[in-house]
Amino acid sequence: MSGNATGVLFRVVTWGESHGPATGAVIDGCPPRLALSEADIQGDLDRRRPGKFLSASPRREGDRVEILSGVFEGKTTGTPISLLIRNRDADSAAYESLRDLFRPGHGDMTYQAKYGIRDHRGGGRASARETAGRVAAGAVARKVIGQSGITVSARTLELGGIAARDLSPAAAVAGPLYCPDPEAEVRMLKRLEEAGAEGDTLGGIVKILVRGCPPGLGEPVFGKMDADLAGALMGIGTVKGVEIGAGFTAARMTGSACNDPIGPKGFRTNHAGGILAGITSGAEIVLRVACKPIPSIARPQETIDIHGNPAVVTVKGRHDVSAIPRIIPVCEAMVCIVLADHLLRQRAILPRR
Amino acid sequence: MSGNATGVLFRVVTWGESHGPATGAVIDGCPPRLALSEADIQGDLDRRRPGKFLSASPRREGDRVEILSGVFEGKTTGTPISLLIRNRDADSAAYESLRDLFRPGHGDMTYQAKYGIRDHRGGGRASARETAGRVAAGAVARKVIGQSGITVSARTLELGGIAARDLSPAAAVAGPLYCPDPEAEVRMLKRLEEAGAEGDTLGGIVKILVRGCPPGLGEPVFGKMDADLAGALMGIGTVKGVEIGAGFTAARMTGSACNDPIGPKGFRTNHAGGILAGITSGAEIVLRVACKPIPSIARPQETIDIHGNPAVVTVKGRHDVSAIPRIIPVCEAMVCIVLADHLLRQRAILPRR
Amino acid sequence: MSGNATGVLFRVVTWGESHGPATGAVIDGCPPRLALSEADIQGDLDRRRPGKFLSASPRREGDRVEILSGVFEGKTTGTPISLLIRNRDADSAAYESLRDLFRPGHGDMTYQAKYGIRDHRGGGRASARETAGRVAAGAVARKVIGQSGITVSARTLELGGIAARDLSPAAAVAGPLYCPDPEAEVRMLKRLEEAGAEGDTLGGIVKILVRGCPPGLGEPVFGKMDADLAGALMGIGTVKGVEIGAGFTAARMTGSACNDPIGPKGFRTNHAGGILAGITSGAEIVLRVACKPIPSIARPQETIDIHGNPAVVTVKGRHDVSAIPRIIPVCEAMVCIVLADHLLRQRAILPRR
Amino acid sequence: MSGNATGVLFRVVTWGESHGPATGAVIDGCPPRLALSEADIQGDLDRRRPGKFLSASPRREGDRVEILSGVFEGKTTGTPISLLIRNRDADSAAYESLRDLFRPGHGDMTYQAKYGIRDHRGGGRASARETAGRVAAGAVARKVIGQSGITVSARTLELGGIAARDLSPAAAVAGPLYCPDPEAEVRMLKRLEEAGAEGDTLGGIVKILVRGCPPGLGEPVFGKMDADLAGALMGIGTVKGVEIGAGFTAARMTGSACNDPIGPKGFRTNHAGGILAGITSGAEIVLRVACKPIPSIARPQETIDIHGNPAVVTVKGRHDVSAIPRIIPVCEAMVCIVLADHLLRQRAILPRR
Repeated sequence: MSGNATGVLFRVVTWGESHGPATGAVIDGCPPRLALSEADIQGDLDRRRPGKFLSASPRREGDRVEILSGVFEGKTTGTPISLLIRNRDADSAAYESLRDLFRPGHGDMTYQAKYGIRDHRGGGRASARETAGRVAAGAVARKVIGQSGITVSARTLELGGIAARDLSPAAAVAGPLYCPDPEAEVRMLKRLEEAGAEGDTLGGIVKILVRGCPPGLGEPVFGKMDADLAGALMGIGTVKGVEIGAGFTAARMTGSACNDPIGPKGFRTNHAGGILAGITSGAEIVLRVACKPIPSIARPQETIDIHGNPAVVTVKGRHDVSAIPRIIPVCEAMVCIVLADHLLRQRAILPRR
Repeated sequence: MSGNATGVLFRVVTWGESHGPATGAVIDGCPPRLALSEADIQGDLDRRRPGKFLSASPRREGDRVEILSGVFEGKTTGTPISLLIRNRDADSAAYESLRDLFRPGHGDMTYQAKYGIRDHRGGGRASARETAGRVAAGAVARKVIGQSGITVSARTLELGGIAARDLSPAAAVAGPLYCPDPEAEVRMLKRLEEAGAEGDTLGGIVKILVRGCPPGLGEPVFGKMDADLAGALMGIGTVKGVEIGAGFTAARMTGSACNDPIGPKGFRTNHAGGILAGITSGAEIVLRVACKPIPSIARPQETIDIHGNPAVVTVKGRHDVSAIPRIIPVCEAMVCIVLADHLLRQRAILPRR
Repeated sequence: MSGNATGVLFRVVTWGESHGPATGAVIDGCPPRLALSEADIQGDLDRRRPGKFLSASPRREGDRVEILSGVFEGKTTGTPISLLIRNRDADSAAYESLRDLFRPGHGDMTYQAKYGIRDHRGGGRASARETAGRVAAGAVARKVIGQSGITVSARTLELGGIAARDLSPAAAVAGPLYCPDPEAEVRMLKRLEEAGAEGDTLGGIVKILVRGCPPGLGEPVFGKMDADLAGALMGIGTVKGVEIGAGFTAARMTGSACNDPIGPKGFRTNHAGGILAGITSGAEIVLRVACKPIPSIARPQETIDIHGNPAVVTVKGRHDVSAIPRIIPVCEAMVCIVLADHLLRQRAILPRR
Repeated sequence: MSGNATGVLFRVVTWGESHGPATGAVIDGCPPRLALSEADIQGDLDRRRPGKFLSASPRREGDRVEILSGVFEGKTTGTPISLLIRNRDADSAAYESLRDLFRPGHGDMTYQAKYGIRDHRGGGRASARETAGRVAAGAVARKVIGQSGITVSARTLELGGIAARDLSPAAAVAGPLYCPDPEAEVRMLKRLEEAGAEGDTLGGIVKILVRGCPPGLGEPVFGKMDADLAGALMGIGTVKGVEIGAGFTAARMTGSACNDPIGPKGFRTNHAGGILAGITSGAEIVLRVACKPIPSIARPQETIDIHGNPAVVTVKGRHDVSAIPRIIPVCEAMVCIVLADHLLRQRAILPRR
């Protein structure tokens, strides 16, 4: 399988470059008879959309999704769902100076090495714009797993070194940074403003929660739920680390402290993060990802051109100061896609009684 | 695809339960004309084998691998390579008391939920014994990537809370815990002994290094090299976290500090960990994984039986005190398998000139 | 993998319903640096387009393809190629009476059984319109294999019981029915006219030739070239039989007659049809497919409705009298797609010297 | 995916060379809690086994299958089932003279072209011996589909030009050639004897019937049931043609004759062969395959050696006079494997009410 697709039964392929005419996704294997309209998808796309507040990229995209197939009279038919999002505000001129340069921290150099050719405009396929297709497909996945009572939500745990307490679910939904700690969020926003003014960018940590997931999802060995979730999340552009449950903390625990005792009503603790031996246990799935700072900074950087000559590059274009908060719906989308696929696979294994 | 297989062109399926007659792997897609014998595989299997030193499981397995197909007169033919490892010292009696109990931290409960049936003996398919097949297949993958000059090695960075300095590559190869800090290794061994005496277990951190990897391996979006590596490593039983390059530290860096400047001779730093936009850059690939303590502890634990009734379980059987050091060759194997697959995929994309 | 995609490295997914807003395909894994424009695709689409001559469906579709991604400055970049073809002349009103009826010979009943829902308009996903996406993707595949000197062409061997002699390659390219026997073609056209006047339809036989294919393409056992070609061709709506080389005639031959003797300059005969043990031999690949008559006939037919009640249906809409000649480019497309995939797979196995 | 595996959810990989130590298969994705023992598999293997009667290869193989994993206390656990069949009577000496020669009609030349190396002994991977693994896996698939009431049986319709009438289901099961026409079978046996005495071989036609298949199995476009069945059958070594339902006869029918009228109790005819638009209709699935004569003939044949020099080869070894009847269980196995996979896939799409 080539690399722009994922899933076994709920199969998603995304396509599109940052400055091409459009971007999109095709979902092959969505269950039939699911109510689905553009409105179901637009909400997540809007959360991912650039240009929403000061720290974000000023690129203006309506990001209107069109459903081109697979839905009939408001319901999915089981056939492929083609989702199209036009690129409207692509400003390629700003990238002309980057045609022959490799921006540090970007895929320019590696795409050139891989393919011997690249679309340099806006990062081409490696642009964060590519995630629009993922988010659109993820919104459909969210509806699929929602039928089984599964919900997925992400929140900001840390930004620019400012840690949040995981206090308020409401704030995590409504706040500008999806941060469950409103007081920390104020400081984070200030930090974003400062960094932006300095032409610099910030990283952070996002936590993803899955609730209502039935036990039994995931496969042994190479198709484990934690493996697939970690792969899906590490496949987001800025992610450099993934933890499940106790994560790196587990490395310092003893077995007697780390094992989650099981009572008749469930697990007493959740160091496992909802997954045992790669299969969901019915407990809440807890994931954390580390986002590096966005590599597009408005400062001169040492680099080389495509001929290997030394050069200095200052990235212009229009860029966010941090992957947070726009990465929030992307993390959710990736988790929804993995869960939808495993949910369908499990249906084949153990038909519901 | 069902979950016991991985890879697109270098495709590995493993099979086998802890207390069945044998365990093994089939590799479909190994390149032809590669010199291969059992001896090439046995070395890695020996490093994974139980019973090598005090802290390890006293189960004694010769773990002799047989190549049953795909090799003719000492060379691979391009057809599937079937690898067989007999289980000789399985002692199922010790597990009889666990037939109806769910051990905390184990897959007993989740396999039951998934399949409605499970082989309770020694953890069945969820046993660490399953990794013998992975290690055998990984040894073949190691030969494949070795032809292109790629080497993979893992080492112990932390165990039971004792951190090692990454000092001595020689010690990382030769020491009992593959620890690059011989002084720390002594303390780790002592800590293992203590924990074992207390019937408890320990976690730790393993670092994996890939050297000599050419640029251009990995695919966009869902088949990124970092995504596949993270998924592969998270799919090892005790792993709860994976980092690449700067990992979670990157979350606290600014873009100007995190971006790796590029000079004519390569990158000045390696916060990216050898991968940019999911594709290898030619720099060293650096990964770290967090291993939870092994859940089989010789202490009474609160649990339930398969009917949901409260119970107390004390795991007997024969168990390691830590996944380290036996997990070292398993980590290497998983990385080798991912690299071999992407190496072959890249050959199809950009034929060598 | 869900069923609307095919291929391992050259991976194609098609989407779209007959009366939806558009139909299309995404190709993931097209090699980079291949010159590609809409014009390269339009030629094959035009050959497939309805409404070209009297016996064909009067539905008028421009069938203009748009390339939405994966091509930069006239060359493929290695990233997914999204192809879009708008449906402009869909007339759904004619299908309203079929909403609750199952047309004999059509997929109405089986889609309903499979999904519990169906888009009845124009056959929905089961419409021959779906092949526009295949043909578009096939045109890209044709360019890929063309770089290696492989050509694929199909011709009409029989129509409505009128057999053609395989005389004139020029006629097979230029004639209205792609028939290599101009005299037979005249009779075929007359037969089409008669059948159309009677509200009936006709079947026929198409031959597909692959020239210039290097030896070594195809895999053992389940991925054999003949297996993949047969599957690809049988997956075209009206195909009920596939033969390779001597085909059914081989069943009546002796081994001494059927084996193709090998001389220093190649095979003396070609009963094998260019494939031995599932792998191409370098000889011409010869395939034949049997096309059933199109099931949409303008005559009353016995059927049932979705509730199982007896009914009579007369198909209106706009339909061809025979799948020939529009199926010709579809057969070619399917063969091109299979060959492109195996060509790339073989590059990974045996890098060119 | 490399080519020695098939299936999406019921996934089979086979391995093994004719003269290696063993051959086998691994099934990943077999549903759990299915009663399974070696005896369930041995019956089909015995039908495939060489050396049963005069016209067959005198190679004597017990073909005893061992189940090495995936079954616990007589039931499948859902984990991979590894099946092992030792090669006991491989006589490689007879093949030494073929080390540098390409036998006409065999894969010798194409394997060499593909891999640049080959195991010449007994045809290596391209030997009919490879089908032992398929038949073993097929026997497991047969049990899976049997739970849903699906049965698969094949019979001999023609051999050496002698056609059988499809008269007696009992004879088709019990006779030495699985021929439903005992009178024709007597003549077929005589023809086999004659051809064997002449050092020649014979082809024939096999019909495969699937009964009890529920409607709704198969996918649109590239994963159609007829496409997958045709591909599976064409992937058997000697098969050169595949027909479904009316097959090549349909090419000469009109639509009004070919369409199967639908009554309240089902289809009035079965020209479709049980499949409409690639999805099963609930009617009997009817397939026919053309088998070429086995290419190993005891007569001198013109060929070349691996250096391209002219040569004469006379195949010694031990060979059947016809692929029939040993191909009968192989055809059944391939059909069972395809059906099992689609049955599981359909469970995920439309959960049983």
